[in-house]
Amino acid sequence: MALTGVTRPGHAQIRVLDVEKAAAFYSDVLGLIETGRDKQGRVYFKAWDERDLFCLVLRPADRAGIDHFAFRVLDRSTLDKFERDLKAWGAPVERIAAGELLGTGERVRFQAPTGHTIDLFAEKDHNVAPERLHNPSPWTRDAERGIAPIRMDHTLLYGTDIDGTLKLFTEVLGFRLTEWVEDDNGQKNVVFLSCSAKAHDIAFGRFAEPGKLHHVSYRIESWEKLLRAGDIMGMNHVPVDIGPTRHGITRGNTIYAWDPSGNRFETFSGSYDPYPDWAPIKWTMDDLGRGLDYTQQKLHETFLTVVT
Amino acid sequence: MALTGVTRPGHAQIRVLDVEKAAAFYSDVLGLIETGRDKQGRVYFKAWDERDLFCLVLRPADRAGIDHFAFRVLDRSTLDKFERDLKAWGAPVERIAAGELLGTGERVRFQAPTGHTIDLFAEKDHNVAPERLHNPSPWTRDAERGIAPIRMDHTLLYGTDIDGTLKLFTEVLGFRLTEWVEDDNGQKNVVFLSCSAKAHDIAFGRFAEPGKLHHVSYRIESWEKLLRAGDIMGMNHVPVDIGPTRHGITRGNTIYAWDPSGNRFETFSGSYDPYPDWAPIKWTMDDLGRGLDYTQQKLHETFLTVVT
Amino acid sequence: MALTGVTRPGHAQIRVLDVEKAAAFYSDVLGLIETGRDKQGRVYFKAWDERDLFCLVLRPADRAGIDHFAFRVLDRSTLDKFERDLKAWGAPVERIAAGELLGTGERVRFQAPTGHTIDLFAEKDHNVAPERLHNPSPWTRDAERGIAPIRMDHTLLYGTDIDGTLKLFTEVLGFRLTEWVEDDNGQKNVVFLSCSAKAHDIAFGRFAEPGKLHHVSYRIESWEKLLRAGDIMGMNHVPVDIGPTRHGITRGNTIYAWDPSGNRFETFSGSYDPYPDWAPIKWTMDDLGRGLDYTQQKLHETFLTVVT
Amino acid sequence: MALTGVTRPGHAQIRVLDVEKAAAFYSDVLGLIETGRDKQGRVYFKAWDERDLFCLVLRPADRAGIDHFAFRVLDRSTLDKFERDLKAWGAPVERIAAGELLGTGERVRFQAPTGHTIDLFAEKDHNVAPERLHNPSPWTRDAERGIAPIRMDHTLLYGTDIDGTLKLFTEVLGFRLTEWVEDDNGQKNVVFLSCSAKAHDIAFGRFAEPGKLHHVSYRIESWEKLLRAGDIMGMNHVPVDIGPTRHGITRGNTIYAWDPSGNRFETFSGSYDPYPDWAPIKWTMDDLGRGLDYTQQKLHETFLTVVT
Repeated sequence: MALTGVTRPGHAQIRVLDVEKAAAFYSDVLGLIETGRDKQGRVYFKAWDERDLFCLVLRPADRAGIDHFAFRVLDRSTLDKFERDLKAWGAPVERIAAGELLGTGERVRFQAPTGHTIDLFAEKDHNVAPERLHNPSPWTRDAERGIAPIRMDHTLLYGTDIDGTLKLFTEVLGFRLTEWVEDDNGQKNVVFLSCSAKAHDIAFGRFAEPGKLHHVSYRIESWEKLLRAGDIMGMNHVPVDIGPTRHGITRGNTIYAWDPSGNRFETFSGSYDPYPDWAPIKWTMDDLGRGLDYTQQKLHETFLTVVT
Repeated sequence: MALTGVTRPGHAQIRVLDVEKAAAFYSDVLGLIETGRDKQGRVYFKAWDERDLFCLVLRPADRAGIDHFAFRVLDRSTLDKFERDLKAWGAPVERIAAGELLGTGERVRFQAPTGHTIDLFAEKDHNVAPERLHNPSPWTRDAERGIAPIRMDHTLLYGTDIDGTLKLFTEVLGFRLTEWVEDDNGQKNVVFLSCSAKAHDIAFGRFAEPGKLHHVSYRIESWEKLLRAGDIMGMNHVPVDIGPTRHGITRGNTIYAWDPSGNRFETFSGSYDPYPDWAPIKWTMDDLGRGLDYTQQKLHETFLTVVT
Repeated sequence: MALTGVTRPGHAQIRVLDVEKAAAFYSDVLGLIETGRDKQGRVYFKAWDERDLFCLVLRPADRAGIDHFAFRVLDRSTLDKFERDLKAWGAPVERIAAGELLGTGERVRFQAPTGHTIDLFAEKDHNVAPERLHNPSPWTRDAERGIAPIRMDHTLLYGTDIDGTLKLFTEVLGFRLTEWVEDDNGQKNVVFLSCSAKAHDIAFGRFAEPGKLHHVSYRIESWEKLLRAGDIMGMNHVPVDIGPTRHGITRGNTIYAWDPSGNRFETFSGSYDPYPDWAPIKWTMDDLGRGLDYTQQKLHETFLTVVT
Repeated sequence: MALTGVTRPGHAQIRVLDVEKAAAFYSDVLGLIETGRDKQGRVYFKAWDERDLFCLVLRPADRAGIDHFAFRVLDRSTLDKFERDLKAWGAPVERIAAGELLGTGERVRFQAPTGHTIDLFAEKDHNVAPERLHNPSPWTRDAERGIAPIRMDHTLLYGTDIDGTLKLFTEVLGFRLTEWVEDDNGQKNVVFLSCSAKAHDIAFGRFAEPGKLHHVSYRIESWEKLLRAGDIMGMNHVPVDIGPTRHGITRGNTIYAWDPSGNRFETFSGSYDPYPDWAPIKWTMDDLGRGLDYTQQKLHETFLTVVT
């Protein structure tokens, strides 16, 4: 199997202030499909083109932010191996029982040095209509309900010990660095990490506080559909942070906006496919404006300061 | 002839501080084609898909801004008629001799109540390669040199007496109102005027000073090529004002940026085709943020204040 | 008024074999909006972005084809003038009473030398929601129901006396030639005629029989939405003739397909804006393959032979 | 490392009849960059966004077709392991010396049961300008020279023993089946295989003769750039086979055309990202028309019969 170890982002569990308002937003505006609710009052969503039962879990809480971000690993033995390796590396690790999240097997949970809770799992139910597996049409009606991303794509988390988390993700979990922002002291301020051939499956940025969520990103199929996403944000009075524009970093196209609880999300298209033998790309502070917003060449203040 | 009277925007003559720097910008970055220079040191440009000899004239000067904006009228007799009608209406009118601009016939010049100089002309040389008229390819190499708009599309001018200029353009020149912004006192603050089936061939906005240029707009073929335009702006460190985004007003897509002299220009795609029997669209101050920037729903301060 | 005389294509009345099947097709697959039915059993449709009450009328009949194609003229006096001019020119002319079509004023009907019935009208009810005229969103839900063209755009009719019809449209109705196909004897085989700044509002092709319909064309906003149109055709097993591809002629992008009665229709995007002073473009038989299908460079047999 | 084993398609070595004509075609029309020639007269090319020294090798020969298709594997030890595994499986294997291809390390070559020569390599020089690794622009001038794909993407090979090759690729090389065409006897007629999260890195189709090339595919960034590719084919009189259209299979968008030697190539955009835990998609003969050409719903004869 050429895609092994950590195979992809699995889901984000985020905290929302008013769960019905949040669920309505993620369903009607972002256009995800609600696939379940549990006894804790959590609401589960998947994107129309995903097969996993869910990619997003909303947990009712009194402050916004992220509970945990999770990755799917290849299989149970991979999960067990990562548990051993994480412990050996010295990360705090625990097992979460199967079924704690709907349709999901056991999870191996660890704390990253940036203060984030990261889960690994090997099993999650698929939710895919049989007609998608036999002479399927290229898309379905769900592809035009709300913004309708094809999948949850990646996350950017802000926290304290970037170097430690970079070390853990690359040395233990097999991620590799694809791009990074270097400050004037030669420190890595933001690191973009891939477990696949995507420019990022997760990214971390240096911040004064641990465990912060910068954004969860959802994949849009084209720049034209990103305009449509922006139109839908405008129609629904969604507060927009930045974009539509091109990122210099990752070459992707973006709109950043906030959900009703103040959690930033991104609709994202484009980008490129880096491979394991590719040297990572360095961004320096003098050109970080273009790194963030290639058109406007501007390092928006909110990007650096507003997190949940 | 179903398209009569004023048939289209013809050209803008704008003032630039450093003519060589400006010429290099309009040629290499915006991607217009230099088609001539005259004894006054003026430099002439056309877009790759235009047939007229020029759509833009740069005049060396010690302050930026617009000298005049010109429209092509159907023929000489139409030109003569407009001269009579403008005089009868009471506008200050003069004739400019043929040849004052390269390859251009006589112009009828008048002063609009907003303090702008507007020229009408019936004759301007065509500049089109014979192979464009016989089994032509859909585009040429020039379509990918710099931003490469297909044409100069319209202008937005800021000035004092909006009502007077609206009256003159609709009653004398046969333009019609397609959209307008109404302030809280029921006054028209910005008016969008069409001499064709475009949402605007010219627009005027209320301002404390007369005769100001807000922007000259250049037509881009698609939203995807507008992203390309933004990339080229980023590559060339062009100062960008707003966008890429959707305008609510005119439904067009936009990037506003400034040329090296500080004159704002727009790259513009999309929009719709209104017809003479269509009622105009009203925008009110409470929703002007979406009127300007539908995605960000924001009335950018620069839009209201920065002109040349 | 700069747009005078004939201002735009108004509607096509076509014959369909099974009116319910046809109505379902034009509503659910092409995505037009049904706006009325009359005592004759005719069904009326408009495109989501049009304001006129209808652009298409389906008439139940026992053979497919076109009853008449109609243009909107500026006003009643223009209509009267065209009636006089058509009679003076020698065309067979009659008046059709107001109300013969729903919400439509009197029509001046004439027979074109190619054997087609053409109607002119000055009045047709508008059908536009008030919210489209005050701080409107760029599009509505109807823009994503079925293929959802923004408007009926033009037609291509096949008939006998091309030269006569060309003469009538240019000399009497004020259309102008924008492009033409010239056969090896120097005859014009296909003529593209504009009453606006579109590359064609109507076109005529030489054919052995009079009065034939080649296709009615519907405007799609972008090449990406044309792919979506093709996907919807595939999903609905619509028989497709040609495309998606680029036309060399008019530079537009196209998919040709057939409705359930065998009437060809086109979904069309792109193209360019010619002006009255522009010389028309000549296509010759040696390059007509690229004229029709620029990518495949192929003169598809069906294009020349299949009509209703 | 989450991407292990076979990491990506490396290159195709194809046979061309007139090497200078072929080199001109691949450079000027397809827009690849020539990166070297060797003593055997072979010409090497890379795509503008690739880092490897080459993705295509043209070998002068007296008949068209493919010499070998090669994959990059993670590292030397992976290469050695595959050599052992291939031998154990019973495939004919040989070592090709480092340097036999410019800048390329040792290759492990084996014969697939469909009659194709497949090479694996762990080392190939990178060819990437330093400015692409430090604050890079999203694209370069080379991205607009000719069709300018971003990379060589995959190949479709026609041959005899599909089941054997499927077994070898999945059991030995770690590829997985993402989609397949099943004939009416329950046989797999065409198999799409991935070593990544792409819908196909290689595909095989059942054919009466072994070792045939159906096409080498090049990745285009968007459907709009695929139209541009088609325009460039039209401008250059490139013989086009099918498209532009949507594939049902892999959901990608395509134009198939032939190089001057008659080797088919594809320009390809879109598609989706399947993961290792996803069940493969089955296509059946009754709907294969949509599988190949979703818009036209047509199983083009050339697709089944024309190979080199």
